[in-house]
Parts: sequence; structure tokens; C-alpha cells
Amino acid sequence: MNFPVLYLRKGAERRLRAGHLWVYSNEVDTRRSPLTDFEAGVQAELRAANDKPMGTVFVNPHALICGRLISRNAAHGMTSQRLTDRVEMALVLRERLFDRPFYRWVFGDSDGLSGLVIDRFDDVVVVQISTAGMEQMKESIVRAVQRLAHPRAIILKNDGKMRKVEGLNTYVEQAHGPEIDLLAVEENGVRFEVPVEGGQKTGWFYDHRMNRQRLQAYAPGKRVLDVFSYVGGWGIQAACAGATQVTCVDSSASAIESVHHNAKINGLDNIETIEGDAFEALKALCEEKEKFDIVVLDPPALIPRRRDQKAGEEAYARLNQLGLRLLDRDGLLVSASCSMHLSQEKLTDIIRSSGRKIDRFVQLLEQGHQAPDHPVVPGIPETDYIKSCFVRSLTGFL
Amino acid sequence: MNFPVLYLRKGAERRLRAGHLWVYSNEVDTRRSPLTDFEAGVQAELRAANDKPMGTVFVNPHALICGRLISRNAAHGMTSQRLTDRVEMALVLRERLFDRPFYRWVFGDSDGLSGLVIDRFDDVVVVQISTAGMEQMKESIVRAVQRLAHPRAIILKNDGKMRKVEGLNTYVEQAHGPEIDLLAVEENGVRFEVPVEGGQKTGWFYDHRMNRQRLQAYAPGKRVLDVFSYVGGWGIQAACAGATQVTCVDSSASAIESVHHNAKINGLDNIETIEGDAFEALKALCEEKEKFDIVVLDPPALIPRRRDQKAGEEAYARLNQLGLRLLDRDGLLVSASCSMHLSQEKLTDIIRSSGRKIDRFVQLLEQGHQAPDHPVVPGIPETDYIKSCFVRSLTGFL
Repeated sequence: MNFPVLYLRKGAERRLRAGHLWVYSNEVDTRRSPLTDFEAGVQAELRAANDKPMGTVFVNPHALICGRLISRNAAHGMTSQRLTDRVEMALVLRERLFDRPFYRWVFGDSDGLSGLVIDRFDDVVVVQISTAGMEQMKESIVRAVQRLAHPRAIILKNDGKMRKVEGLNTYVEQAHGPEIDLLAVEENGVRFEVPVEGGQKTGWFYDHRMNRQRLQAYAPGKRVLDVFSYVGGWGIQAACAGATQVTCVDSSASAIESVHHNAKINGLDNIETIEGDAFEALKALCEEKEKFDIVVLDPPALIPRRRDQKAGEEAYARLNQLGLRLLDRDGLLVSASCSMHLSQEKLTDIIRSSGRKIDRFVQLLEQGHQAPDHPVVPGIPETDYIKSCFVRSLTGFL
Repeated sequence: MNFPVLYLRKGAERRLRAGHLWVYSNEVDTRRSPLTDFEAGVQAELRAANDKPMGTVFVNPHALICGRLISRNAAHGMTSQRLTDRVEMALVLRERLFDRPFYRWVFGDSDGLSGLVIDRFDDVVVVQISTAGMEQMKESIVRAVQRLAHPRAIILKNDGKMRKVEGLNTYVEQAHGPEIDLLAVEENGVRFEVPVEGGQKTGWFYDHRMNRQRLQAYAPGKRVLDVFSYVGGWGIQAACAGATQVTCVDSSASAIESVHHNAKINGLDNIETIEGDAFEALKALCEEKEKFDIVVLDPPALIPRRRDQKAGEEAYARLNQLGLRLLDRDGLLVSASCSMHLSQEKLTDIIRSSGRKIDRFVQLLEQGHQAPDHPVVPGIPETDYIKSCFVRSLTGFL
């Protein structure tokens, strides 16, 4: 194929050689290859300043990330066939890992498909396209999904925030099959139903699946507080595993409604809910001298951008201290984070200092990460974002 | 109680306040409290330079780590009762976590019992004492174990290297019950037998139990290479989970003998062994163009001391590159490390650069840590040492 050429500035190839797949607009030699010459979503050959071929990229001249590597072979553009092959390689991994067809089928860059996320809920498949390049492949994506999984329905949930950055319109579209209102999810043997309309992201977060499975091991006979519960992923699974009592806290009325719905379809009558701000709810529970055996903290990203670092870390610290305060003398804190900008070490250190402040002896029992259907590419730090700490907290121990 | 007082130099209390439990000899104000006034193993009250009480410590004037915090309450020395309480709190956690009585029952500092390790193999208990302070509690330890678990046998395997540093003699002693030659171990549903005499440490490494369990999920139908296999912990479990063929590599003849024995008691006829240096064996397999679906690398600490950092990291890099080379086009590398001095990030980065060097697309699927019967204390970095990376390696993918 004959691709237009995008030239990098001197040295800008280093991160790519080290394993990353993105080109930033300030790394392009715009004298040799003006970005304005490229239409959003076209494919190009990428060359280093010394003319060495680096591979092929999708280009978007309007985005900060203006290039996304397709292949390290300059002859390999993104074709229907190559896309299908990669979607299939992604499927091979998930089928090896999971007995039941509920998983993140494609996780963007980590599966060599920058800008594409596919979640599978048995015979319903939810696709999210977030880049102009991937938008060009829309038909091929739908055909690949049909060919590989024969789903009853395919939903294009193209309403993510990133699309605006890429100059794409936002829409939700039924690409195949009957209209779906409720997603039926199964995770670690527990059933959930989540509305498609108004649900967060694709509707479900498989990324914490292994951590929720680990929670099940600790849950029998325990009173559990699930903070930022969304539709009850942690809390309902804890109850199904034998927790005696679960309280879910979330600020969204529709999430709380979903918690009750999911309690019902699992035949649970021990799920309480608190609708409101998590910090306020935790403070109120502290004042009421409530105690739990297990407190789960799974907040949204409290450090959304680098510039929120300090305020975000302080929020995590406040949150974890409140969580520890609400634990009984021998309790378990499950402290999660989905902030890419909060490292595992920093989270552990926040728990350390929170424990010291209120004189708890804390034992870090388990360190969890995102599930293997969300692979991390070691050269792309942005792909590594989920962490969880399972912490035993002892009062009057040492 | 009336303890002698050990005074810290100004500022030396900071690390202790932050959560650590150790006092280094250069942190002691030897003018106010000469270390030579203390006998090895005695208890003392610890005070900051400003006379603020910091708690109680076991003292050993001959060791670099001359103080080990017993309690943050200056009135609480280590008594038989306090020791029993802590051993019991440790047991409560393990009984909550594990269905079967096979685990590290006490993990030193992490269970508030610096210098004490107890491994449980059903009704056989192996105790390791590594400090002069804990040696003083020997009788109480044996009584606590008897009272809490009523084991058939208790072995004092006091032959660790640390004992010499503490001025203690080394010995293996049967503290209770009949003499035991073979430890019967059960891990993740698989049986092992390990000789007490000549076995490494207590005989078994429970620290990788969760990582070996995860390996079982990937093993069915696969050809597995288990490098630094010791008695076959990874390889035999993979075979029991359905691996079609397993090759164990170890330099110790007695370990290889144990691999065969453990294959036999599990009714396995698909376990091969290579006795020899791991690096040499891997190179030979590369030259023979052998390929595996899964390669497990679980070397001994290749960075035993800080000064070995560079050479050690290079050894990990060589090892991981050899491992990747031996994988088929869609293979799994399980790369473990028990070096406290190798961080998870550094190990991931070694895998990244190894993958780039030989043009593999690597997906980090899982990041494993030490099992929850080896808790980490966030203020004591020395308690965090095990890591494992589950890496899918794809050839010709991107």
C-alpha cells in the first residue's frame, strides 16, 4: 500500500521503540509532514527523523495524540482482515481464561486496537469506538464481532468523552439485533442486570472482577460496607458469598435503584442502601459509631488529571482514614483506585499513614490489579490503572 | 514491669512512628544507654531523644538491627500471654482464609512477632526462630502452638543464616512428638512430600501459593517449562491442572529427586526433569529450538544485597529474555522474583525491554504478590518481597 508519510522529530521515536504506541502532536516534524495535510482517521506510514520506518499509524491532526501505531511493519496497514485477526487473538485469550462469555473482549491498545473497547455480555456485545481512526473501521468491527461470536445484539455505545477530542459525534446505536434495555451480567457466579441507557461506560466494570472474587473469600459471616457501590458489584457479590449484612452507598439514585433490583434477582434480603455523597455518608456513620467487619472503597478516579495530584491524594487519604475508622477491632479494608495517577506504592503509603494516625496495626494481605481481560502493556503506563489493597486492620494489637 | 531504657538519637524515632519496628545500632544514643549494658535478648523500654516513650523492644547489642519493637505501649513487654495472643490473632486470619490447615501461620514482624516464623503442615508445625529476643520465648512458643493447634509434631528448624548474626547457635530439634522425615504438604488441592532434612527453609514456600493457583487457570493442554523448580511446586500443580507435558529444571539433585517423587504420588507420568544450571539449561533448550506454551521462572533472590543490584538486574534480564525466546507464538511467561531489592516496576520494565529486544508484543495479564499468609506491613518495606508477572507473549502480532 502507498501511505502518506508522517515524520517524527529527532528523538521522538524513542518512546515508541520502548514499547509505546502513541505519537503526540509536538513530536511530529510538521515542516516535513504538516499535520494539516492529513484528514482525521487516515492511515500513514511513520518514519523517524533519520527516515527509518517505524510502522503505520492512524492519524488525527486535531488530537493531542495525533498518531496511534497500527503495526511496526510499514507495509501493514489496518485492514478488515488485520482487524479481525486481532479481535480474534483477543478472543482466544478470554476464552482461555473464562468459562462463561462475560468479559472485556477488546481493551484498546493492550490488544493492538487503539481506540476500540468491546465488552461481552454473553450474546450481547457492547462496542465503544473512541478515535477517528477506529471509527473508519466501524463496519469491519461489527462484521468481525458477528463472525467470531454470532451475538444476538451489538450496541455501539459511542458516547464517551474522548470522542469530542477526536472530533467525533456521540451516539448510541443498535448495530445488530433487537433493542436491548437491560444488560444481563454474570461475574464470579453472581447475576446482575444493568440498564444500558444511563449506565456508566459500557454498563459494567469487569476490571475489578478478580478483586471482587477475592472479596468473596473474606465475606462469609461479615457485615460489609460498600462505598461508591454503583449497581452493587462488590456488595452483592459479598452477600452472595455469605456476608450477613451489606450496606451500599452511592450518590446516584438510579445506581441505588439498580442495587435493590440486583439484590432482588439474587434473592437477597440483607442489602441496605444509603443514597448520598460518600464522604458525608462515612462521616455520618462514624458519628453514629457504626462498625463494619469489611469496608470497600471503590471511588471514581479522584486524580483525573496530573494537575489534580495533590488534592486527589488528600481525598484518598481522607477516604481511607474514614474507612479504617468504621472497622471493628479486627476488620478488613478493601481500598481500590482506578486513578492511573495513583501508584500502588502511593496507595499503600496512604493506608500506612492513615493507620498510623489512628493507631491501627495494618497488614496488607493482598494487592489486586485489573483483571487479565484488561491486559497492561508494559511500555504504555496508561494501560495500568486499577489497583486494590486488602488490608487487615487491628486495634490495640501492638 | 521495670525495663532498662534504650534511648534513641534525635530523629531516629521517625521511621518507627511511620510504622517500622526495627532500631538500627547507629540510631541508639549509646552515651545515654550503652548497648554493652544490654544482654542479647533482653527486653527494654524504648525512648526518643526527648524522653517520649516509644514502646518496648527486644535488644541485641551484637546485631545491626539491635532493637525490635514488641509494643508501642511502654508498659507492654513480651509475655507468654502476649505471645500466645499474637500467635492466636495470626491463626484467626489463616483459618478465615484457608479451608485446609496448610499455611504460614506466623510471618515475623508482619504478625507482630519479629524473629518468629511458623509454618503449618496440618498436624506438623515447623518453627523458625531467628533473633535472640525470640529465642528467649522458645518455651512459650512451643506451648502456644500446642495449645492452639494440638499438633502431632513440632520441629524447631533453627538453622537459618540470620541466627549467626544474632549470636545464636544453629540446630534442628524435635520439640514435640515423633520424629518427622517427610513433610506432607497440600497446596491448591495438590499433594507434595518434602524431606525435612536438607529441605530449603522450613521445607516449603507457601508465599507463591496464590500465583501457583493462577497458573492452574492457564495450564490445561499446555507444555510447561518450570525453571528453578525446587520440588516441583509450579510444575506439578500445572500438570495436575491439565498441562500435557512439564519439564522441571533445577541444579539440586535432591530437588530433582523430589520432583519425581511428587510426580509419582500425584499419579503423573508427564513430568521430565533437567538437573543443571538454569541459565545453561535454557540456552541449550534455545539451541535445540525447543518451544513451550508456558515458561515459569522462579529464581532464588538474584539481588541478595543492595550492592548486587546491577549484576542482579542483568541476571533477571538475561533470564527473562531466555524465557521469552523459549515460548511459542502465543505463549505465557510467568516471571517471579523473591528479591526484596527488585521492585514490581523494575521487573515489569525488564520484561518490557526483553520483549522489545526480540520483537514480542507482551501483555501483562496478572501481577501477583505474596499470599495473604505472608502479610506486608506498609511501614516495613522488608516484608514485601514476592512478585510475579503473568505475561502473554505474541510473535508477529503488531
